Amino acid sequence: MAYGKHVTEILYGGDYNPEQWPREVWEEDMRMMRKAHINVVTLNVFSWASLQPSEDIYDFERLDEIMGMVRDHNLKVCMATSTGAHPAWMAKRHPDILRTEANGMKRKFGGRHNSCPNSPTYQKYAPRLAGLLAERYKNYDNIVGWHVSNEFGGECYCENCEKAFQQWLKKKYGTIEEVNRSFNTAFWGHTFYEFDEIVLPNYLSEHFGEDRTMFQGISLDYRRFMSNSMMECFKLEYNAIKKVIPDARITTNLMGFYKNLDYQKWAKYLDFISWDSYPAPEDAPATIAMNHDLMRGVNGQESFVLMEQTPSVTNWQPFNKLKRPGQMRLLSYEAMAHGADAIQFFQIRRTVGACEKYHGAVIDHAGREDTRVFREIETLGAELPHLKDILRARTPSEVAILFDWDNWWAVEYSAGPSIYLKYLDAIKDYYTAAFEKNVPVDIVSVEDELSSYKVVIAPLLYMTKTGVDEKLRMYVKNGGVFITTYFSGIVEEHDLVIGAYPGKLRDILGIWVEEQDALPEGEQNHFTYGGKDYPAKMLCDLMYLESARALSFYEEDFYQGTPVITENRFGKGKAYYVGTRSTAEFYRRFMENVFRDAQVYPVLNTPKDVEAAVRENSRGRYLFLLNHSKISRKIALPMDCEDMLEERAVAANSPIELPAMEVRIFRYK
Amino acid sequence: MAYGKHVTEILYGGDYNPEQWPREVWEEDMRMMRKAHINVVTLNVFSWASLQPSEDIYDFERLDEIMGMVRDHNLKVCMATSTGAHPAWMAKRHPDILRTEANGMKRKFGGRHNSCPNSPTYQKYAPRLAGLLAERYKNYDNIVGWHVSNEFGGECYCENCEKAFQQWLKKKYGTIEEVNRSFNTAFWGHTFYEFDEIVLPNYLSEHFGEDRTMFQGISLDYRRFMSNSMMECFKLEYNAIKKVIPDARITTNLMGFYKNLDYQKWAKYLDFISWDSYPAPEDAPATIAMNHDLMRGVNGQESFVLMEQTPSVTNWQPFNKLKRPGQMRLLSYEAMAHGADAIQFFQIRRTVGACEKYHGAVIDHAGREDTRVFREIETLGAELPHLKDILRARTPSEVAILFDWDNWWAVEYSAGPSIYLKYLDAIKDYYTAAFEKNVPVDIVSVEDELSSYKVVIAPLLYMTKTGVDEKLRMYVKNGGVFITTYFSGIVEEHDLVIGAYPGKLRDILGIWVEEQDALPEGEQNHFTYGGKDYPAKMLCDLMYLESARALSFYEEDFYQGTPVITENRFGKGKAYYVGTRSTAEFYRRFMENVFRDAQVYPVLNTPKDVEAAVRENSRGRYLFLLNHSKISRKIALPMDCEDMLEERAVAANSPIELPAMEVRIFRYK
Amino acid sequence: MAYGKHVTEILYGGDYNPEQWPREVWEEDMRMMRKAHINVVTLNVFSWASLQPSEDIYDFERLDEIMGMVRDHNLKVCMATSTGAHPAWMAKRHPDILRTEANGMKRKFGGRHNSCPNSPTYQKYAPRLAGLLAERYKNYDNIVGWHVSNEFGGECYCENCEKAFQQWLKKKYGTIEEVNRSFNTAFWGHTFYEFDEIVLPNYLSEHFGEDRTMFQGISLDYRRFMSNSMMECFKLEYNAIKKVIPDARITTNLMGFYKNLDYQKWAKYLDFISWDSYPAPEDAPATIAMNHDLMRGVNGQESFVLMEQTPSVTNWQPFNKLKRPGQMRLLSYEAMAHGADAIQFFQIRRTVGACEKYHGAVIDHAGREDTRVFREIETLGAELPHLKDILRARTPSEVAILFDWDNWWAVEYSAGPSIYLKYLDAIKDYYTAAFEKNVPVDIVSVEDELSSYKVVIAPLLYMTKTGVDEKLRMYVKNGGVFITTYFSGIVEEHDLVIGAYPGKLRDILGIWVEEQDALPEGEQNHFTYGGKDYPAKMLCDLMYLESARALSFYEEDFYQGTPVITENRFGKGKAYYVGTRSTAEFYRRFMENVFRDAQVYPVLNTPKDVEAAVRENSRGRYLFLLNHSKISRKIALPMDCEDMLEERAVAANSPIELPAMEVRIFRYK
Repeated sequence: MAYGKHVTEILYGGDYNPEQWPREVWEEDMRMMRKAHINVVTLNVFSWASLQPSEDIYDFERLDEIMGMVRDHNLKVCMATSTGAHPAWMAKRHPDILRTEANGMKRKFGGRHNSCPNSPTYQKYAPRLAGLLAERYKNYDNIVGWHVSNEFGGECYCENCEKAFQQWLKKKYGTIEEVNRSFNTAFWGHTFYEFDEIVLPNYLSEHFGEDRTMFQGISLDYRRFMSNSMMECFKLEYNAIKKVIPDARITTNLMGFYKNLDYQKWAKYLDFISWDSYPAPEDAPATIAMNHDLMRGVNGQESFVLMEQTPSVTNWQPFNKLKRPGQMRLLSYEAMAHGADAIQFFQIRRTVGACEKYHGAVIDHAGREDTRVFREIETLGAELPHLKDILRARTPSEVAILFDWDNWWAVEYSAGPSIYLKYLDAIKDYYTAAFEKNVPVDIVSVEDELSSYKVVIAPLLYMTKTGVDEKLRMYVKNGGVFITTYFSGIVEEHDLVIGAYPGKLRDILGIWVEEQDALPEGEQNHFTYGGKDYPAKMLCDLMYLESARALSFYEEDFYQGTPVITENRFGKGKAYYVGTRSTAEFYRRFMENVFRDAQVYPVLNTPKDVEAAVRENSRGRYLFLLNHSKISRKIALPMDCEDMLEERAVAANSPIELPAMEVRIFRYK
Repeated sequence: MAYGKHVTEILYGGDYNPEQWPREVWEEDMRMMRKAHINVVTLNVFSWASLQPSEDIYDFERLDEIMGMVRDHNLKVCMATSTGAHPAWMAKRHPDILRTEANGMKRKFGGRHNSCPNSPTYQKYAPRLAGLLAERYKNYDNIVGWHVSNEFGGECYCENCEKAFQQWLKKKYGTIEEVNRSFNTAFWGHTFYEFDEIVLPNYLSEHFGEDRTMFQGISLDYRRFMSNSMMECFKLEYNAIKKVIPDARITTNLMGFYKNLDYQKWAKYLDFISWDSYPAPEDAPATIAMNHDLMRGVNGQESFVLMEQTPSVTNWQPFNKLKRPGQMRLLSYEAMAHGADAIQFFQIRRTVGACEKYHGAVIDHAGREDTRVFREIETLGAELPHLKDILRARTPSEVAILFDWDNWWAVEYSAGPSIYLKYLDAIKDYYTAAFEKNVPVDIVSVEDELSSYKVVIAPLLYMTKTGVDEKLRMYVKNGGVFITTYFSGIVEEHDLVIGAYPGKLRDILGIWVEEQDALPEGEQNHFTYGGKDYPAKMLCDLMYLESARALSFYEEDFYQGTPVITENRFGKGKAYYVGTRSTAEFYRRFMENVFRDAQVYPVLNTPKDVEAAVRENSRGRYLFLLNHSKISRKIALPMDCEDMLEERAVAANSPIELPAMEVRIFRYK
Repeated sequence: MAYGKHVTEILYGGDYNPEQWPREVWEEDMRMMRKAHINVVTLNVFSWASLQPSEDIYDFERLDEIMGMVRDHNLKVCMATSTGAHPAWMAKRHPDILRTEANGMKRKFGGRHNSCPNSPTYQKYAPRLAGLLAERYKNYDNIVGWHVSNEFGGECYCENCEKAFQQWLKKKYGTIEEVNRSFNTAFWGHTFYEFDEIVLPNYLSEHFGEDRTMFQGISLDYRRFMSNSMMECFKLEYNAIKKVIPDARITTNLMGFYKNLDYQKWAKYLDFISWDSYPAPEDAPATIAMNHDLMRGVNGQESFVLMEQTPSVTNWQPFNKLKRPGQMRLLSYEAMAHGADAIQFFQIRRTVGACEKYHGAVIDHAGREDTRVFREIETLGAELPHLKDILRARTPSEVAILFDWDNWWAVEYSAGPSIYLKYLDAIKDYYTAAFEKNVPVDIVSVEDELSSYKVVIAPLLYMTKTGVDEKLRMYVKNGGVFITTYFSGIVEEHDLVIGAYPGKLRDILGIWVEEQDALPEGEQNHFTYGGKDYPAKMLCDLMYLESARALSFYEEDFYQGTPVITENRFGKGKAYYVGTRSTAEFYRRFMENVFRDAQVYPVLNTPKDVEAAVRENSRGRYLFLLNHSKISRKIALPMDCEDMLEERAVAANSPIELPAMEVRIFRYK
């Protein structure tokens, strides 16, 4: 759930940084926001230096003034804690707050994401500021949320982190012998005798390139440790606020498929999920939706806040193309279709200096309300009140994709068989096939309950952590349909090989994979499926049937005639193994068959590039139709509906014209 | 003006390093130089270690000997100060002289460009050596110039530089508040309270890639500071020499469009300009000429010295192609056509060891005078005396291109809208169009007087420093024709956005640019100009006419039908805005129209790839015809002339055959 | 000679690391090895940390147990000294053992190849361990060889190395003046006055990119020094073992054309050669054979041990393709055809953790003996006993290719004329032409005797060290045929240019090379040879005939009609100069003519991609036929033979069918 139960409207607004402007501009900002139907601002994201000019001096005067003004203008507030970048004076006086890079380079003051998570200085001052803010503003009932730091991310390799890592390992493993076993240090004789012999895995030690490590075990644990270190920093601030305001709703803005942080672990400590969506111009609608679904998924499929998106352009991509007319609205509704309950922008007024001055904003450098972008924002702002019944509606999914950060890290640390093994590619293959069929998908963790799903897909499930095989075994036994792929079931949670592949999944899948043939770029094998020929790319598993039957066979090379896709009846369910990577066309066809067989039905059959998505709550069931194509499309509704934006009834089967980039939102009758 | 009024011949020679050779070779060098008609040598470029073997010991014995010999052989001398690379012992005993790289890496002894400009050791010993040289050789009247250091360049990020930068900022801004305002530190809360909190902007702080910075303001100031730091080193040596020889003519060898150093500022402190021209094999004649014109332009359009060029090959390019027969001569005369008064080579005798041993030289490793290269040098040497009347002639230009180092730095530090925004590309677009029409161009700074020009072009004038808009405003009001382009007028000198685009140029141009659409690689829009269709590439400005009229419109996408090229009558003049980037064909066509309209006429109409250039002085007007193509061309002269090399008259309109790579130089009658 | 005279069988086995496994697995390993006909294991490669848990504590208990077991199972042992990676505790307590990278980055514990060769700690503990191992296991008569460290390699730039380098230079040059002369420090004034001013040449000093240096002389000497430093480490261990076991046979595993180490120098201190062959999937059979021939060549053409190859896949290539059925056997026999007397794998049992867990092994993760790979290993193991007579047979070659590490380093440090100058490319051009004709080639050093060869080829012999020209002069005078190429004879051993090109080879070749034209990518000239047109690529030497005659001429550009290939009669012999680089087709044709003229005959004429190779000893003459193609081929034997694997006679001229990837080995009758 997003901003909490007392919020009864769809919040609309964004990051507002009046501290960058003289006071005379503020009133104009208020007028423009009102005109744009904005009702929420995120304040105080980057003011640490200003709030704390020195060790023990704090100055909230300007923030008081800002808070007073926005309350006077009936704006709700998402209150940031300002700890996303530390003050220059702090870096100078307490260099332990500065990070060290993977090549051992100790940083100086600059940028953001610049605090070492294991810095005593940071751990002291960040929660102290959060607590002081909570104390000072606890009585502002227009504060709908607290926003800790900003886009936690990056990593550190300083001496404090090294010591903390040694402690973390000691706590995790107990003995040095257990560390040695987990990292398989016997290989190359890296045996440790004391915890203080362990150094951080980076370019000074075990790493030799992007994601290239000589010891996967220690590198994996470093990722876990670093994600956890930052999470502990979040928790320090969280607790400081809660101590003052027990019912505060606290979040931090996440970043979708952000590799460094295991959001599935983080989400347990967030009161609600908020995230920043910055798709590249070339990102497909499915890719964008997949991010939303992940963000909904990390917190039990509850609705979330779209904390940031750009109204028009970004500034940091190589080519910062304008969002086309209608595109910002389309992307906003796509977010909502997948679970967003609030739509917010970065940023309200475009900054005049530093690296984001060419990043889009509600109020442009020209300061005019007749810009194309402002008018589109105003239009969307006027529509949202029609949709407030959708608040807290959920997505009814019968299909789950299993996603796991540990597995992501492990797959991409793997030395062999192919540098092209990319976890997100595999996830996207299957997600896109479902998306294009308008089949809603939940993206779940290995800890989530699976029994409610008809189909569970775990692409490239290389690592099977303790209990995962048993959960999947029970799921299939009880009638579930399970799909996994090449290079799955290989290792346990320390990245140690389990044995014959696919390890603990072998009985469920009914196969033994003997070898994996990694194809060089440009080479491929082929197979026939459903009467059509498809390429087998990147990796070809060579397998033997044990209890499974083969659905398709390799057509070339020395493994011609051996299985490539298998189906295994197991208990009341079925388990499929797809032993290679193929084309989007194949995944569409394959998933179509699986869905039909498993009685999973689309929300609606729509023309190409028109998305249909559904949310539902006690107030109704809502259908989103989004035309992602560049041409107008016709669609007939499955039943009598109410067009929520136009507030009029639409009869079942009456054809609806949906122009390019247009959106319609209906309530089922 | 190049080497000074007492020089009455075109000097011809180059860098001569006898200290690399046993004495028995020297006499042979003298003989070969005489044979090649060489009359000037640059001496003592890299002898610091030999001249100063220790703290307080100097040894000029060998240099005395060399100076005696070259005087005996009637050679003029350009005397270098040897401070382009410091001695190894100095680096060892005074490590403050070593530079620190942008990633914080403190260098050890090696290379050249190796002295930190803010090193106390360097600032002490470099001018001391220059002063001692002046003292010792002040009575040599064959010294025509003094050559400080060598190719100043690079940068340093050491602690001394950091402290100097803090001081420089204090001097520039007075207060820390003013620094904060200029850098817009309120963004991301980078507010400084004390000057000593400021760190150098590099990979340890605000930078994260080639030209990528999080705070443009500080990065820009660092470039200014570093260019200035090196200039101060130049000035220390300059003053040390002048103190001894008040009428010495002092220079240092510049490098054309060298980004790190703001030569427009430097030129104020140079008695004359000299520079090193090392075009790549693929460089167009226009590109080479553009460099010469810049070098002429930084010093009030006075003639200059071509201090270095290679007689044959370079050694440092990926593929070091031979200069074809005739090509060295063609390039030498191209330099002269654009203002060179002396032609010098690097180097006289090819070195046998270290990284430049495969760089071309007058005397090759074989030591023979029957090499192709030597014979071409000899031929050119024999021709130059015919041209001495050209000395100090000037280029009569009616067109100026405005070039500004601050703008160069700012454009390419910009985060957004497109990584393809490259200042020199934009300059080259317009320069080439004029060059190919044989329209002489002056490249001027924002401080230069514009009133004498009929057309002033300021491509990509992103930054409008204080006073620039007013200068342009007056220029156009008084009848001038002004051209600027996309992404212009955006920021003031601290890289802070001025407001609605194009900022302070808005009234002059009569437009408002609302948005900029950066096109990804491979995408383009189109427009029609003069009946022909052209692509709009990289960046498309979306604009509204205020007082301007549109000359052309976008033909595609949602901004189809909106203006792409505009013309604004302003006062007695006109201002054009070209809102996108297009092809060479477009620039040719567009400039042709502008020139016709402004009554700017070519030197001569010539066949494709034949350049016509003019210089003039009190002794006459000189026409250079240079055939850059690979085929023979026919040209008729516009009036009766004298062929200066052949010393014969040529009648107007009589056709002249100009073989491939051939050059003719005429004096108008 | 490989494992020593007392070994009378072809050893077959590989690296065995039981220390990574619980004891219960060991017995199964023994069973599987026996089944695979394995008779040798390399033990103890990475056990330093386990053998020496602290400063003065050693623990050989587990190794005793392993040694006992393998002796009980009649396995021979290649005993490694375990010093290829040091213990973590040692790195912590004695950081001098850690290496420093070329950018000055001091490493921490990690990886392998991690000991600084000039570390006092390493120099103390490594030989101590080797000596203790020798002492403990000296009575094990199943030890057939000692294996020092593992794949020596890499480099170090720490302070200890810097000091050692200064000492090394002092020893080599005696005086600092001689260092200055050798490095040509007069260029850029890098003159040293004391040895302690000399710093290591790397990114902190003279280097600025991969193989890019400002002073070739010092960079070359650093490579010599570093190769020597590691060799000295090898020798420390060698001597420690020999002191205990005077007749021990000691090796270390080399890596073919490994640039960092001058194996021609190393080989003098190895009792026999062993090496690790890991071809990429795209490597041609000729490339693989060329490596074997180099490894045979560094030790006087004696037979060697193939110490490592993968049974199936590697894990470290971008795409780790499976070896196809039959391919491992084909590659094993190719090794033997070129001199291998033992065939060993890395590794016996596939490790379950760290970076090599997806590297192939005899026993796979599944632990099964019915895998394709195990079955192929078993098959090969059963064949080898048939071939034991081949042990210690030699290759009868009439052709030598001269290969020189100093030259390799010098060519690729050269600044100009072309970055495409790659020594191995030039070597491969000529080697491949001979290989494809089934002409055996010895790869020899400049110190080897040449008189027994009919043809000596020295491609790209850029550096002619002292004595080399005289050796070649005598060789040709006495009737030898000599071939060299573009950019040869340029420098002496300090990389100082000798004078007119090709320097001291000028009289032998009878030409003067005046210039070198480096062609940019995509450009080429042409020439006609033997009636066919060929491209001239990369570098075109422009030359004058002195006593040579031209065999072919450039056909384009300004040097059209000048010689490109020349032949010079010199004494009783001939010297060819090939002044450019061309295609494989040209090299085939050219070498065919040279061979015919020199009366060099192929082992056998075979169809395309079928290799014929010969070894011979007192027991007979052995013919290897290897079908590297993907189709079956027919070949007739030149005389009556015995098929050694099938143990049956084959009559001369009877056609033999050789399926794809098949091998036949015959003994001549």
